[in-house]
Amino acid sequence: MATISATHSYFRFQQACRRSAPAPVYRTRFSRPSASMDSGDELRAKFMEFPYASAPQRDLMVELLSSVETHLGPSLHPCTLPSDVQHFGNPDGTAHASIHLRSGLPSSQVEFVLGAGINCKLPSGGALNITSLSAYLKPSTDAPHFLIELIQSSPKSLVLILDLTPRKDLISYPDYLKTYYEDTQLDRHRQSLQKLPEVRPYYSPSLYIRAVVSPTAIVVSIDGGERISIDEMIRDHVGPIAKEVLGFWMETCACSDRRTGESERSYLAERDRIIKTTTIEVDLGSSFPRLFGQQVSDRVLGVLREIYGE
Amino acid sequence: MATISATHSYFRFQQACRRSAPAPVYRTRFSRPSASMDSGDELRAKFMEFPYASAPQRDLMVELLSSVETHLGPSLHPCTLPSDVQHFGNPDGTAHASIHLRSGLPSSQVEFVLGAGINCKLPSGGALNITSLSAYLKPSTDAPHFLIELIQSSPKSLVLILDLTPRKDLISYPDYLKTYYEDTQLDRHRQSLQKLPEVRPYYSPSLYIRAVVSPTAIVVSIDGGERISIDEMIRDHVGPIAKEVLGFWMETCACSDRRTGESERSYLAERDRIIKTTTIEVDLGSSFPRLFGQQVSDRVLGVLREIYGE
Repeated sequence: MATISATHSYFRFQQACRRSAPAPVYRTRFSRPSASMDSGDELRAKFMEFPYASAPQRDLMVELLSSVETHLGPSLHPCTLPSDVQHFGNPDGTAHASIHLRSGLPSSQVEFVLGAGINCKLPSGGALNITSLSAYLKPSTDAPHFLIELIQSSPKSLVLILDLTPRKDLISYPDYLKTYYEDTQLDRHRQSLQKLPEVRPYYSPSLYIRAVVSPTAIVVSIDGGERISIDEMIRDHVGPIAKEVLGFWMETCACSDRRTGESERSYLAERDRIIKTTTIEVDLGSSFPRLFGQQVSDRVLGVLREIYGE
Repeated sequence: MATISATHSYFRFQQACRRSAPAPVYRTRFSRPSASMDSGDELRAKFMEFPYASAPQRDLMVELLSSVETHLGPSLHPCTLPSDVQHFGNPDGTAHASIHLRSGLPSSQVEFVLGAGINCKLPSGGALNITSLSAYLKPSTDAPHFLIELIQSSPKSLVLILDLTPRKDLISYPDYLKTYYEDTQLDRHRQSLQKLPEVRPYYSPSLYIRAVVSPTAIVVSIDGGERISIDEMIRDHVGPIAKEVLGFWMETCACSDRRTGESERSYLAERDRIIKTTTIEVDLGSSFPRLFGQQVSDRVLGVLREIYGE
């Protein structure tokens, strides 16, 4: 559901759910009423309402969201998504989703923070659970966006995407590569995780996803086994790295002093627009109808398109 | 020595040769006289003069170069590099290099084709052999450049880089991604190779290298073992893929009908300039003095800088 993560997720969805997805449904009524909140832990509380993920996956996301609320909450609007966009599903209860989005105040560098959870029953009897947190910055700064996504298709298998997504072409702007990726030694997190025998590089089937992430992106599949379970992997390895990267992002990127000039802002706004458009049209647009039916899909995508500024 | 490959190679060099590299030498005389040729198989013949690579590695490079000569030779100038840039080394004979470069005629889309071989004795008693072929196109077309590089640091270990390098930011130019990488299904070659148990993804220590290659780039390490040797891997798997990718590049990219407009040409020229500059200044510039001594390094890099249009 996050801009990047969704692109990735729904390719996975397409693979995992192709046979299990229901036929398009035109009048689903799965959505639950929204509990509008203005408190500082709105994102965290909303995520607690999404009970489908495994406990360690949910605990990690709640912890990350709490951290975002603590550090950035005062500079974010409350979530204004319609209730039937905040929670929706298909009528036979095989697919559910929860989206929560808070836009930044005019004074904030944050454009919006989006937390999402998706659950889909698999033909095998198991379930696919996707949880993600993404945060976009405004063109007033060129600092990278943030993304984490956990995709768990079985108790023993997890795909993790964790990245500070570049806002500029790293070849045309070598200083950008140096500032945000080389000097910060961001790659050490990927190196640390990939030393574990359970962790292997993961190639997204989407070339766009491979192109949009940074060269320090953690894009891996993790296989739990006898040595260590997926739950332990999340708790002992993925969690600490995710918290450190998010902390770095909030401190260095979301509150960056680097202000952009007018032409730079145009460039960033246009490049960000392409990222959002690509995600919605190519990936969400092609998968949501199959998962949630055409009407629900249209409703949710319509709202997201507006927010994404199309 | 190829623009991209060198960047990669010399990070490897820095690791492998740090202790074996000689102190800077100021009057090396290793260079051999140049045998100037105007024939159609000049690149191939030149490469035959570089005897350090393993037979399968050399055979593959000779075959690739023959193919380039056959298809593009008539549209290339003969090599005009000075003889002491075509072949050079350090005085104690622990490091040798051979570079051969042919620029495109004004009517050609090819800016230049560069074949290179580098040999360096390792402290272990073995040798590091790097062979590469890269081909740059002019800003009159936006088609990708070509690169192959084989880095063999032991009889049982090989790093392969094979890519059609993008000329444009794949996010800002989604049509470019579609045209050259999605519609062409280039990723099938990477998929095919990475199915083999001997093949693993390779992460270049240079973030620039990771950023500059395409999302379909083959960047892998290959470990020969009991099932299949490195020589067999090159002959049976790497070779056929490399020939197919080069054939595709020559047919679709080097002879592309896509002509660029003025502003596009400026963008391409500037982006290409950054790639070349980054390679020479950051990578070759930092490694060549250690390998070949300051004087040889200055001479070779000075000539390449001129050709690369700095």
